[in-house]
Order: sequence, then C-alpha cells, then structure tokens
Amino acid sequence: MDERLTSGSGGKPIRCRAAVCRKPGEPLVIEEIVVAPPMPREVRIRIISTSLCQSDITFWKMKDFPGIFPRILGHEAIGVVESVGEDVNEVSEGDTVIPTFISDCGECVDCRSTKSNLCSKLPFKVSPFMPRYETSRFTDLNGEVLHHFLFVSSFSEYTVVDIAHVTKMDSAIPLTKAAGLLGCGVSTGVGAAWRTANVEPGSTVAIFGLGSIGLAVAEGARLCGATRIIGVDVNQDKFEIGKKFGLTDFINAANCENKSVREVMIEMTDGGADYCFECVGLASLVQEAYACCRKGWGKTIVLGVDKPGSQLSLPSYDVLHRGKTLMGSLFGGLKPKSDIPVLLNRYMNKELQLDEFVTHEVTFEDINKAFDLLIEGKCLRCVICMNNQ
Amino acid sequence: MDERLTSGSGGKPIRCRAAVCRKPGEPLVIEEIVVAPPMPREVRIRIISTSLCQSDITFWKMKDFPGIFPRILGHEAIGVVESVGEDVNEVSEGDTVIPTFISDCGECVDCRSTKSNLCSKLPFKVSPFMPRYETSRFTDLNGEVLHHFLFVSSFSEYTVVDIAHVTKMDSAIPLTKAAGLLGCGVSTGVGAAWRTANVEPGSTVAIFGLGSIGLAVAEGARLCGATRIIGVDVNQDKFEIGKKFGLTDFINAANCENKSVREVMIEMTDGGADYCFECVGLASLVQEAYACCRKGWGKTIVLGVDKPGSQLSLPSYDVLHRGKTLMGSLFGGLKPKSDIPVLLNRYMNKELQLDEFVTHEVTFEDINKAFDLLIEGKCLRCVICMNNQ
Ligand SMILES: [Zn+2]
Ligand SMILES: [Zn+2]
Ligand SMILES: [Zn+2]
Ligand SMILES: [Zn+2]
Repeated sequence: MDERLTSGSGGKPIRCRAAVCRKPGEPLVIEEIVVAPPMPREVRIRIISTSLCQSDITFWKMKDFPGIFPRILGHEAIGVVESVGEDVNEVSEGDTVIPTFISDCGECVDCRSTKSNLCSKLPFKVSPFMPRYETSRFTDLNGEVLHHFLFVSSFSEYTVVDIAHVTKMDSAIPLTKAAGLLGCGVSTGVGAAWRTANVEPGSTVAIFGLGSIGLAVAEGARLCGATRIIGVDVNQDKFEIGKKFGLTDFINAANCENKSVREVMIEMTDGGADYCFECVGLASLVQEAYACCRKGWGKTIVLGVDKPGSQLSLPSYDVLHRGKTLMGSLFGGLKPKSDIPVLLNRYMNKELQLDEFVTHEVTFEDINKAFDLLIEGKCLRCVICMNNQ
Repeated sequence: MDERLTSGSGGKPIRCRAAVCRKPGEPLVIEEIVVAPPMPREVRIRIISTSLCQSDITFWKMKDFPGIFPRILGHEAIGVVESVGEDVNEVSEGDTVIPTFISDCGECVDCRSTKSNLCSKLPFKVSPFMPRYETSRFTDLNGEVLHHFLFVSSFSEYTVVDIAHVTKMDSAIPLTKAAGLLGCGVSTGVGAAWRTANVEPGSTVAIFGLGSIGLAVAEGARLCGATRIIGVDVNQDKFEIGKKFGLTDFINAANCENKSVREVMIEMTDGGADYCFECVGLASLVQEAYACCRKGWGKTIVLGVDKPGSQLSLPSYDVLHRGKTLMGSLFGGLKPKSDIPVLLNRYMNKELQLDEFVTHEVTFEDINKAFDLLIEGKCLRCVICMNNQ
C-alpha cells in the first residue's frame, strides 16, 4: 500500500508527482518531487483536480521577476486534507477543501470588516514561497527548491497551503471537481457582480471580454437579477456560449459598422449600461467601458490584469461631471471562508452554474494540452484530474 | 416709485443694474441693462445677495470658448421671485428662492431616480443661454445680447432662471444671505461627503485643498460623524481656519520633511484614510489622494475642476488589487429641490454652519473687490449685497 495514503504520513515528507515549470514558456515536466510536512498553521492537501487559469499562463511565460523558475503553477483546485501542521483546528485529515490565492485570516482589521476582502496579515502578493514563513515546501529529487505560486501550487499531487488560504467544504456537499473552479475564475467573476458591484435586480450589465471570467460575471449578474446582459467581444461565437450564462445581447467589437463600441452601447441601452465589467486587462478597454456606463450612477468594475506598471487613464471631465464610479476587486471582492460556502450552496441548489464552465477534462499527464487549449481560446475551463484517489 | 417694484411688472422688460464682464480678465462694469420677462417655465428673480465662486473666476479669465463675452457671471445667490412665466406653479411672486447651476426637472429618469442628480432633460453644460430656449434674456442699452452663465447669472439686480434650476425656500425660514451659499460651493462640499461618499460615522476623512469647497467637505464629514478629518494644503494657516469646520489634523504638503504626502498620510492613519476628497482640480493630486486612501474600502472623490481635456491617470495594479473606488460628482451629488431644503433645516437647527463661510461682504458697486479677495486667497466666501430691497 502506498505509504503516503496511510495515516501517520503527517509528519513525514511525501514523494509524489508534480508538473514542474522549469523554464518560461516550455512544457511542464511531470517529475517526482518531495513535499515537506506542513509547518504550524499549514495544511498538506492531496489535490483531486485542478484547472488552468489565465494567470497560470501569464506566469508560465514570464521571463523576468516575479516570474521565477523552477516553479509549481496552478491555483484553482479542490483537494482533501492529508495532514495538518500545529495550531490548525479549522480542518483535519480527510476534509475536502478549496485553496485560494487570497487569504482570510479572520483576525486582522480587514478580515473582521465586512467591507474588505484584502487580508492585512497575509497580504496578497506574487510570492515564490509560503506566506507565513517565506520558505518553500517543495524540492526536486536533487534537493533543489521548487517555488510556489500564488500560495496554492496545485499542479502537484500534494501541496502545502496556509490555513488562511484554505476554505473547508461542508461535509454534506459531495466532492465535485467543478467546485474547484470556485478557487479563482468563477468566484472572481460571480463575486464582481455580486459583491463588488452589487448588481441590482432589473439592471443592465455590459461585459467586455467573454473569457471564463467574463462569462462568470454574466452568471453572477444573472443570479443578481439583471434583466439585460450585454457581451462585448471580437469573437461572435461567444454570444452562443454566453447565452447559457444569461447573455441577452452581443456587440461584436470587431464589426460595429463604422461606429465605436460606446456609440453602439449607448444607443442600445438608451444612455449606457448600469454596470460595465472589464475582463480583458487593457487600459484602453477600461476607458471604453467607463465611457459605456451610464451617467448618474454607472459603475465600471475592473477585473482584467494589465501589464505591470501600466496606467489607466480617464478623462477628468467625465470623472467629475458624469457621476460615475470606477472600482476594482481581487477575487471578486469575496471573502473566501464565508462567501465560497454561499456559492457552493447556490451550486447545490442548482442556481449557480459551475459544470457548464468545464468544457474539457484531461489527465494529469496531459496537463500541457490544457495549456494549448486555453491559449488557443478553445476552452473555458479545462479540468486536470489527478487520478490519485 | 420705482416701476420695477410695483406689481404688474411681470410681463414687461426691467431696466436694472448688472455687473457685466465685457472682456476676459478685465474688471466687471456696472451697467444699466434690460432683463426680458420670463418665458414659459421661467422665473424672473430679484437677487438679494450673491457670492463669488472659483468657477466665476475661471470663466471670467477664459479667453476661448466656452468663455464668451459680454457675459453676466455669478451662480451662487439668493433672491425673491419678481414674476413668473407661463406654466410655473411651483413658485410665485414674493417667494424666496435659491437658483442652482444644475437642474431638477422632476420628470426625467434621472430626476425620478434616487441615484442620480444629473437631469437628462436640461443637462448640465456651460451654455451662454437659457437652458430651455437657447436664447438670452439680457440686453444692454444698445440692444446687444449679454450672455448667461451657468443658467443663473446672479451678478445682476434681476435675472431670469428656468424653474428647473430654482429651489423654493420654506417661507418659515427667514431669508439670510448665507443661505445663498447653498447654491454652489457649500452644497458641493457638504454633499460630496453626505451624498456622494456617504461618509460613515467614526471614519477617517482626508481633504486635499482647503478652499471653501474643501472646508465644506470637512463640515459635511463632521455632520456625518467622521471622527478624524485631515486637511492637506500648502498653507499652514488653513489648519486654524479648518478647525472651525471639524478639521482634526493637518498635513502641510509643502513641508513633509522628505516624505511624500502619501507616506505621511499612511503612517498617520495606519494604512490610509477611508475617504479622500480632491478639491483642487489637479490630476496629480487625484493620484496622491487615490494613493492615500485605504485598501479594501477606500473611496476617492473628485471635486476639483481640472483643465478641459485633461486626463486622470491611475496605476492599473492599484485599481485592481487594492479594492479602492474612484468617484466624482457635480453639486456634491445633491438633488437641489429635495436636498437644499434638508441642508437649510440643518442650518436653522444650528447643525450646519453657513455663516462661518462668509468672511467678507461688499456692496454691488465693489464687486471687483470680491474678485481680488478670492484670487489672493484671502477669503472663503465674499457676499455681494445688492442693496435693492
Ligand atoms: Zn486577515
Ligand atoms: Zn486565477
Ligand atoms: Zn430631470
Ligand atoms: Zn460654483
């Protein structure tokens, strides 16, 4: 019997397989690695399934800091607690958990406030290490340190995650691979509509960029009761896909018949959308979204990640004279430990769609196919199954 | 007896005195002018007192369009209805009224919504004419058209204002000159704290620029129950002045001992202010204010009017990763006809300070002194008394 599955493995290093990114842009290599036991307040997790998110691609390709190699990518996953370090009472061996790149320590002023989801104690950053100790739990068989990614590193059969980055699933909820999508993309989009923008029933929502995040915004807006959800994309096929998630209208940004997107949008909505979500990460598209939102009460919510150091520029006159609001949020403004369970419940009640985001599934050995699919724009979420149950 | 004070003057032109701006930047000239009777939905008002606001200075100096001459400036005033045009039921002869540069038609989707104060029917613009007819009611004795300003033009013994731009004062409230300040500056500042930002009790507020608008923000924040109100200005004297309006702390931007304002602010507030108000109109200062507001829930509110065409630039990373909000508002987000009466009541209850903003008073003949005082930064509000009662 595999020693790592017997109880009592807790205090010992585990040898298992991981998909290691050795060099920027090169295919991941499935290797045997060693995963150290969890330190105090850490949890070692057996990953059941993981999925690929755009940020994995970004850091996979990133040649300069904070791109760093060798590294174990992956930050959207579901798993089972293998063992816990000292001072962990919240979860125990066998619990199903969803790790998240943002923390929820429960103690700092932000975690105690209902208004913030940006923990001050273990703040978000793109670190190559564990958040509490600034060290790695991964080594290869030569003893070389492998770096962490977004405090999750789920492209491994086992990983170690800080307890502040772990949300426990209610044991009454069956473990489904799709629930792992709540670890990043779907939560970010749904949360942006629900928590950040607080979309009101009956309102008009515009979504710029219909990747997974954009479609998750549509799903969130639909759940909030928006009656008109307008997608903006250069790929006409996205309209059909988006209809599943509540999209009612579509503007093809590549084919507006000599009009700008803002002109079409303002005509279509008689003055602009109540909420505009930018899901691509282009400063110029944020400007367009801002111009498309209605005077008096329009909100523009930025979700797309632009290049480091980029500036977002808006016309001063419009900021002052049009009564609009610009917001941004990380993880959709959700507090992982309290909000993910709410979304899980809505999923169990068949209100929130999750399975519909899973368009592809590959085995761990085929993880590089997931990269190809996402880069080619052929999938929403490709789930990578660890087959280690 | 002066014919213009007898009843029945309603349908006839009135000859009276006005301070006409003939050329950009030149002293106003007190001239006899002719004020036409009000057209349907218009009101002719005898101005009791008016005061000088920064926007008057801006347009007084403005050589190019929308600067236009000859023009009658002034947009912060209190007066008494002399006569009304057809289809005016809301006010009648003898009513005390406060004209405003923004309209409140009561009929359009914005005026009917609680979320917007930007009337769609008679939208805000810097027009030289009446809002509903695009014509002027002023001529000089040679028959030359004199242009309007911000739909108010209060530097005249009589003016004509559209009923959508007129708020009636409760007849139980005695006519005080200070109430005219609710027509622009004080309302803009108090409203920004109260309606736009919705400052919560116990919060920390930072105000960039302690002119009248900035001090009115302090007054509004004080009324909302903010416990810490930090002023930022280059003039140390503003701290003493600001204390009257609730200022508790001061940062001298010209003397931060090798630190940036944001460094001092973040230290002083342990992470940033809950609300930052930019009251100067400099894109660079908006950036500083945005950097000074707290992650997670900080709001930056833009009140300052920058140069036409200027762009406001923010770091994309901060917009996305720091959970901050950028807002702007015209007239503090107030709806004139419903919100000015609330502020008047708070003034009568000695909660809202208005008289404290009036640092100087001049006669109409001395109106150019008011310009000197404001330009030299020697006054908050200089009230100009028409002495025509
Ligand atoms: Zn925390
Ligand atoms: Zn992600
Ligand atoms: Zn209106
Ligand atoms: Zn003004």
